Amino acid sequence: MMITGEALIGGLAVKGSEGGLRAFNPATLQYLEPEFHTVGPAQIELACDLAGAAFDAYRATSDEQRAVFLDTIGRQLMELGDALVERVMAESGLPRARVEGERARSVGQLKLFAQLLREGSWSDLRVDPALPERQPPRADLRMRMIGLGPVAVFAASNFPLAFSVAGGDTASALAAGCPVVLKAHSAHPGTSELVGRAIVKAAALCGMPAGVFALLTGSGNGIGQALVAHPAIQAVGFTGSRSGGLALMAVAAARPQPIPVYAEMSSINPVFLLPHALAARAEEIAAGFAVSLTLGVGQMCTNPGLLLALDGADLERFKRAAAQALEGVAAGTMLSPGIAENFLGGVHKLADHADVATLALAPQQGGKGAPALFATSGAAFLARRELADEVFGPAALVVACRDLAELRQVADSLEGQLTATLQLEPGDYDAARQLLPVLERKVGRILANGFPTGVEVASAMVHGGPFPSTSDGRSTSVGTTAIARFLRPVSYQNLPQALLPAVLRDDKLAGSWRRVDGELTRQ
Amino acid sequence: MMITGEALIGGLAVKGSEGGLRAFNPATLQYLEPEFHTVGPAQIELACDLAGAAFDAYRATSDEQRAVFLDTIGRQLMELGDALVERVMAESGLPRARVEGERARSVGQLKLFAQLLREGSWSDLRVDPALPERQPPRADLRMRMIGLGPVAVFAASNFPLAFSVAGGDTASALAAGCPVVLKAHSAHPGTSELVGRAIVKAAALCGMPAGVFALLTGSGNGIGQALVAHPAIQAVGFTGSRSGGLALMAVAAARPQPIPVYAEMSSINPVFLLPHALAARAEEIAAGFAVSLTLGVGQMCTNPGLLLALDGADLERFKRAAAQALEGVAAGTMLSPGIAENFLGGVHKLADHADVATLALAPQQGGKGAPALFATSGAAFLARRELADEVFGPAALVVACRDLAELRQVADSLEGQLTATLQLEPGDYDAARQLLPVLERKVGRILANGFPTGVEVASAMVHGGPFPSTSDGRSTSVGTTAIARFLRPVSYQNLPQALLPAVLRDDKLAGSWRRVDGELTRQ
Repeated sequence: MMITGEALIGGLAVKGSEGGLRAFNPATLQYLEPEFHTVGPAQIELACDLAGAAFDAYRATSDEQRAVFLDTIGRQLMELGDALVERVMAESGLPRARVEGERARSVGQLKLFAQLLREGSWSDLRVDPALPERQPPRADLRMRMIGLGPVAVFAASNFPLAFSVAGGDTASALAAGCPVVLKAHSAHPGTSELVGRAIVKAAALCGMPAGVFALLTGSGNGIGQALVAHPAIQAVGFTGSRSGGLALMAVAAARPQPIPVYAEMSSINPVFLLPHALAARAEEIAAGFAVSLTLGVGQMCTNPGLLLALDGADLERFKRAAAQALEGVAAGTMLSPGIAENFLGGVHKLADHADVATLALAPQQGGKGAPALFATSGAAFLARRELADEVFGPAALVVACRDLAELRQVADSLEGQLTATLQLEPGDYDAARQLLPVLERKVGRILANGFPTGVEVASAMVHGGPFPSTSDGRSTSVGTTAIARFLRPVSYQNLPQALLPAVLRDDKLAGSWRRVDGELTRQ
Repeated sequence: MMITGEALIGGLAVKGSEGGLRAFNPATLQYLEPEFHTVGPAQIELACDLAGAAFDAYRATSDEQRAVFLDTIGRQLMELGDALVERVMAESGLPRARVEGERARSVGQLKLFAQLLREGSWSDLRVDPALPERQPPRADLRMRMIGLGPVAVFAASNFPLAFSVAGGDTASALAAGCPVVLKAHSAHPGTSELVGRAIVKAAALCGMPAGVFALLTGSGNGIGQALVAHPAIQAVGFTGSRSGGLALMAVAAARPQPIPVYAEMSSINPVFLLPHALAARAEEIAAGFAVSLTLGVGQMCTNPGLLLALDGADLERFKRAAAQALEGVAAGTMLSPGIAENFLGGVHKLADHADVATLALAPQQGGKGAPALFATSGAAFLARRELADEVFGPAALVVACRDLAELRQVADSLEGQLTATLQLEPGDYDAARQLLPVLERKVGRILANGFPTGVEVASAMVHGGPFPSTSDGRSTSVGTTAIARFLRPVSYQNLPQALLPAVLRDDKLAGSWRRVDGELTRQ
């Protein structure tokens, strides 16, 4: 499949009507062909109008039809072959193994949502049979979930495939029966076009309406604002910076009809090194930590940016071992010069901070990110809010607390996070029991004796967390619960069988997961 | 139990620190004893702080403990006996039968959520077992829903019991493990105190933390704004006017940490009188409509305020029969002089509208609401947005459309609604099939051959709908799905059995509803 530099609207490739832009190879520092163009207001409007027009036809498809559509997207993605892998590598600086892994993850994600559709319980079917003898009589009541409507999805910079054009937001929205208007990330327009064309081809193969998917190309905040403000758009999925997410939340809240925004924004993912674990395995934990911190040059939403422990000899062992391990990791090419520059700024802010000691800091090179490790005290961390700011890249801060009470106080001071990790041994269980209620209120996922990077695509995964790690702590962007973001319940009272949605008719209900008078059954 | 004119904070009765207010009997036009006082900023803060402090202890209770708590509240409510019924009648002007019915509904609602807790699947337990052999190995992942945190609930004016202190918002929030800080409606402070004391007593009997419930008394917007802005509050439940709901949404969105607001605001509940149904049963439908419109003097969220039909002789039959039936209904005392005045204003606006004909309009009396019926054309309705404004009370507008296309156009022009009703016969099914996709996008509940008033408390009920009928079309305030408003998912990765929440431990999971690798099971 060719990269032509076009947007995809209504199943057709169209040149954006505004200014040109090119992808940039952060490894070779060269601009890439071809030229893309930013879509204009009329093109954004057309994409949204078509998505609105496609909604009823698309949501009327059966679960099986949408499952086949998702599977077909996955197959088309694989059929792009090495051209896709190479374009991702060129546009992101990510190594081949990571890109191939991310492609497999994306295909796996599409398959997972296809499975979810085939299993069927996602739609939360409910029946409260009529009780004609009761006084007053009860009507026949049935309920199901339907899609919210067209979803605007904003692709992430750090996962050009798995959190991008055919990523988790797209997969879950399409599974829910919602058309998707996708804003490609300006850093990887070629990748986006290839994947977008795969989706368009899959839609055609599956007989889906042409408005079910659109790809908008370009740079600048104007596209996102126009997209989120368009009346046809009914929800927003976003992965990116806090400022970007907050800006979209403001647009969504100011609409005549406010809509939900699911923005995954920022997280420093605290790791608690509890005393017995540190005593038993300081060096082993340090080695695991160094791998997790530098995975993908630290450009992970779940990067372990904050380490919390009690001050003392065991923490010193950890610090030494971690610094040593990190010094052995070469600087890596970051996703873009802008990200590298921001990382450098964050590192320097910590290095120059009066209350922060530098444990490891390789010389930084332009466009690359070298690991950095810093240390401060619990008291300083509590006093200086800026020490909790995310530094996107391979940098972390060790906070040495006076005692468990201060450790808990630090935990309690944190903003909402995607994850929290406990390194612990049985001797730490009492301390962990005191921390867990705090952490449950603060984070979406709690791990023991692991590291937060590596977000499994699975039914029980939560990749979300209280504000400001996401805009909406009731949601996850990874795992099957992600579909719930794009659903709402509709109830049907006394509708004749001939007019009920097929899934709620008596003949179809038998054998489906449903709740009858509140009780789950498949009989 | 005595009414002392006090707020309830931390399990104790306290006098509000600000200005005094009294309840008013809309039937006798007399103020009622005793005097109440508006709570001050320090009292609001204390109630919220205590709710925040109680959250961890309260959510750590078992499902069975919270079920017993809800059942106990229901029993305490009944033990208030006739004193409660008489106070509600005095503060609302509602007749005894309605008040006793509403009390039964409230108790039934508490029981339903107790049942939901005992059934267990509300917490959406999930397990993806470890796959140590896989490359890379998969960790043990478990998920459950937990409460969001303390919930601010604003009681409604039109249901002094069922959408008030111990109403659906309180029942679902308490079921979810969330403490409740309740803002009593200023129109029925005595009712609120009685019911609040019943909840406080139930909390004490069940050994719940004192901060689990607070009742704030008073008038003015200051209480609500301070309450929603308090950092401990994590969600808001509200039933009332659109302006009130929008004001709370703005406060919630402007917080450093935005929080969800579930506001049930306004709805005109379109009823489609399809041609074959009108031909077969114009008079019968008119009789049913007149009963539904005047139920509770029309002060229902689901009041059928809009009738849509094709112009013609059968619609004329309906109009005549409906006008005649409504003229036979006496004016009823409205909930408050303010509501009666607003109703009169809305009725006059329609009566004086150039494009509106008056079909029935009894002389209105101060403080009472007499039924009113108006008519206009589809073209006028489409041109004049103000004709879709809610008139809270027993008034409705008949819209005569030129043809089915215009009828569909009118349906498509509507804002989000709680309900839509189809009066139909088999000959109307084709027309209904064209309307249904539109209605599914617009409303929370679709009824056939009934009327929208009378919202069953049941598993499959949706009492919600797209904005602006509610602030959040993903939710319902009646039925068991209401609990989902106050929940968020938390995932646990590789946590030792000793540290997992009890419900997710292997021994406890066996026999519970859960999803294993995505498949529902109770084995």
